[in-house]
Amino acid sequence: MTATLSLALSSGEARVLHKTLITDGNPVYNTIRRITAPAMPVIDKTAEKPANKSLQCFENSENSRPSSLIDRIFRTHQGGKIRVAGKFLIDNPESLAMAYTPGVSRVCQAVAADPALAYRLTGKGNSVAVVTDGSAVLGLGNVGPQAALPVMEGKAMLFRQLAGIDAWPICLDTQDPDEIVRIVTAVAPGFGGINLEDIGAPRCFEVERRLQDTLDIPVMHDDQHGTAVVVLAALLNALRVTGRRLDQVTIVVNGLGAAGIACCQLLLAAGAVYLRGCDKQGLVLTGRPEVLHHSRHRLPHLIRYDHPVGTLRQALRGAHVFIGLSVGNVLTPDDLKLMGQDPIVFALANPDPELPPELGYRHCRIYASGRSDDPNQINNLLAFPGMFRGALDARATTFNEPMLLAVASALAALVPVRSLSGHYIIPSVFDPHVVPSVANAVSQAARDTGVARHAAQTGQPQSPNRYLTVNITDN
Amino acid sequence: MTATLSLALSSGEARVLHKTLITDGNPVYNTIRRITAPAMPVIDKTAEKPANKSLQCFENSENSRPSSLIDRIFRTHQGGKIRVAGKFLIDNPESLAMAYTPGVSRVCQAVAADPALAYRLTGKGNSVAVVTDGSAVLGLGNVGPQAALPVMEGKAMLFRQLAGIDAWPICLDTQDPDEIVRIVTAVAPGFGGINLEDIGAPRCFEVERRLQDTLDIPVMHDDQHGTAVVVLAALLNALRVTGRRLDQVTIVVNGLGAAGIACCQLLLAAGAVYLRGCDKQGLVLTGRPEVLHHSRHRLPHLIRYDHPVGTLRQALRGAHVFIGLSVGNVLTPDDLKLMGQDPIVFALANPDPELPPELGYRHCRIYASGRSDDPNQINNLLAFPGMFRGALDARATTFNEPMLLAVASALAALVPVRSLSGHYIIPSVFDPHVVPSVANAVSQAARDTGVARHAAQTGQPQSPNRYLTVNITDN
Repeated sequence: MTATLSLALSSGEARVLHKTLITDGNPVYNTIRRITAPAMPVIDKTAEKPANKSLQCFENSENSRPSSLIDRIFRTHQGGKIRVAGKFLIDNPESLAMAYTPGVSRVCQAVAADPALAYRLTGKGNSVAVVTDGSAVLGLGNVGPQAALPVMEGKAMLFRQLAGIDAWPICLDTQDPDEIVRIVTAVAPGFGGINLEDIGAPRCFEVERRLQDTLDIPVMHDDQHGTAVVVLAALLNALRVTGRRLDQVTIVVNGLGAAGIACCQLLLAAGAVYLRGCDKQGLVLTGRPEVLHHSRHRLPHLIRYDHPVGTLRQALRGAHVFIGLSVGNVLTPDDLKLMGQDPIVFALANPDPELPPELGYRHCRIYASGRSDDPNQINNLLAFPGMFRGALDARATTFNEPMLLAVASALAALVPVRSLSGHYIIPSVFDPHVVPSVANAVSQAARDTGVARHAAQTGQPQSPNRYLTVNITDN
Repeated sequence: MTATLSLALSSGEARVLHKTLITDGNPVYNTIRRITAPAMPVIDKTAEKPANKSLQCFENSENSRPSSLIDRIFRTHQGGKIRVAGKFLIDNPESLAMAYTPGVSRVCQAVAADPALAYRLTGKGNSVAVVTDGSAVLGLGNVGPQAALPVMEGKAMLFRQLAGIDAWPICLDTQDPDEIVRIVTAVAPGFGGINLEDIGAPRCFEVERRLQDTLDIPVMHDDQHGTAVVVLAALLNALRVTGRRLDQVTIVVNGLGAAGIACCQLLLAAGAVYLRGCDKQGLVLTGRPEVLHHSRHRLPHLIRYDHPVGTLRQALRGAHVFIGLSVGNVLTPDDLKLMGQDPIVFALANPDPELPPELGYRHCRIYASGRSDDPNQINNLLAFPGMFRGALDARATTFNEPMLLAVASALAALVPVRSLSGHYIIPSVFDPHVVPSVANAVSQAARDTGVARHAAQTGQPQSPNRYLTVNITDN
């Protein structure tokens, strides 16, 4: 099966991991194997039928490739990937009277009298809306809200399975920032957090900021901050490996979309001093360190999109770190020679990195990409489940900068010092310690910064398997 | 336990059924006992602690009553009643690559190329948004969106357990009809149907109509049509028992809110001719039968709220049927004497019926209420799960009048002719045949009226236990 997978997806689109990510011979996600539930999709009976005409059309519309994997992917998605389940069975008049009318009216009255009780007596405190307008879905661009649904369902699965969170996709048939803000504000009463997803830049900045200002629950655009915290975590460890300090290295961020700008902001917050931001026009973000640091929250205003002060190659001159959040193959080995000694390159474009892995591993001191089939996978799946878990646990009113920094530190600290190497700067997405550590860091930082409504401290770090729960289908 | 329940809720608020509803000694919901899952709530550990101060305050704020039931109700709601579950486990790189990136992008592309594939490759076709603005929650009134959440969660449980539907609560922090319409339209891409719930009249009429006009998925305000179809079903059987015809009896509908107006409309559509509508002002809806029938879709415009043409007592003179959707205790035994022989009274006000059961059973030929502890419970739980099941199965674009009429007929037909009596005119909400019959009727009517996108006919009626699924918690 693994062979089929890698064969079918290998043509530059993406390969599938079939080796452990860990270099010390002790795969950290062994723990997950303990789970005894069937790992393979429970296939709907209808899925056993041959693919229908529409699917065949789609498959034939592109260059021919082995259809077995494609078929399996489509079967996996048959009928959707998530379901809503009751926590107990309503099967007699008593349970009906308790969970529904007339008993439920007591609960409604209680919440009406004290809205804070919604966190106790409803699912609000464990629910996250995964909101998209379908404008920037994966690398596919503006495919619209309905075509974004499979991604949001996948995200909801990951929220449940990694962090025990009830996430529901809200795919919006509008891309107007005012409307998005109004709609998300209106649906917020039922949720404890808002995960904005795959909303294009620059709209995403305004939408997120306005929602953060309006709502008293945490709002996070994952494409921005999920990426930024993982990049920072990986960079902290890469610098440890190379014996350098964040405030001494020169960092080039290439690609100033949602993720790129968020990375710049978090790097500045973490103490980066020498930062150069490039877009396809060239070097468009530069300035005196103190100005950049001080103005990091309104960074988009500092970007001189139409008046670049140099080229990417000029920006690379003497730089120590390249963080690519742009498009594939914009970097060559020659470019690397412009950089300082022992270059650190994070080539995060999807599906093709800014610098191909085969060149990256050869020419860089440390190379990381977003690809699951290579070491050092920088994936925001490392961040969002734990971040929302921690924010919900603390009943945080927002995500703030100290919380993001705490996540990056916690993630970096998960790589044991003895294992730290150029090929192991970031934990695996299947490391069962990731979510509890991130959650703990977030809720602690929320309390420390006064944005936690839930004062109680959890004290001990949570068990690594706390959120690794088995899902059993009920149909 | 049953004793405790009835004790605690007995003071006119509501009692809990602890006897079968069936008069022929053969309880129809025996089937449900076959389910082996625990019927009692899986109580969260935190719930074992004594109720916190807020809850105690709430309990003490009203007249003292045994707290054991109240405690149990609150415990049942601890942390909410629904959860989101993945249909399979993402526990290794392969399953991650299939269900999430990169594999999912193939599915997104397919849906983008052919939006109809969303019904096949996402959960859209089995998902219903339960939308409320919190303006008319149960009998509690305008308690707002957050306090409405426990009801919506209960409804989502019932959608799942009775009809296998994935329903998610959307509680809106706005009561402006324009905004509600805009928001529901915007979130619709992810859902196969919209259940409007507990939205006050007259706003609900406009909101529903505009959404039906805008969206290509079925939209139903349950308080209107769910109630109306069950009332019509019960009335059809009551008339059978008393040997009368719908077009010959005079019907008084008292209370012209959402449910009352929908009842009038459906009664007229079903062939009722002599209809009198009363509000607290008196008799405010009357007219020549052909005018009423012809104008039934804009009935609110015919209601002369400020110019009643008579009193309720005048309206009752010679009437055969009284349908109360108003407030408790507005009817007296003396009033019944004004009515024709063998009066049929549906006293559906909650929690106190228009005529108390003890008087109703003594003075009426047939008496029904919304109470679960008496025979003839008229409860829209009989309608909504099957209605949405059928509409989703047919991929209906709307709910239309023929579909509503088909549901009423199907529900009425579920009471076997041999069992039909003054005490058994409507099936139990736990009768496992209800949902499949209603669903079948709806999807057949959708096909017959050309609003079904899914042409395939299911042929055989579904197995009665098709939708009775066990829910297993996964945490």
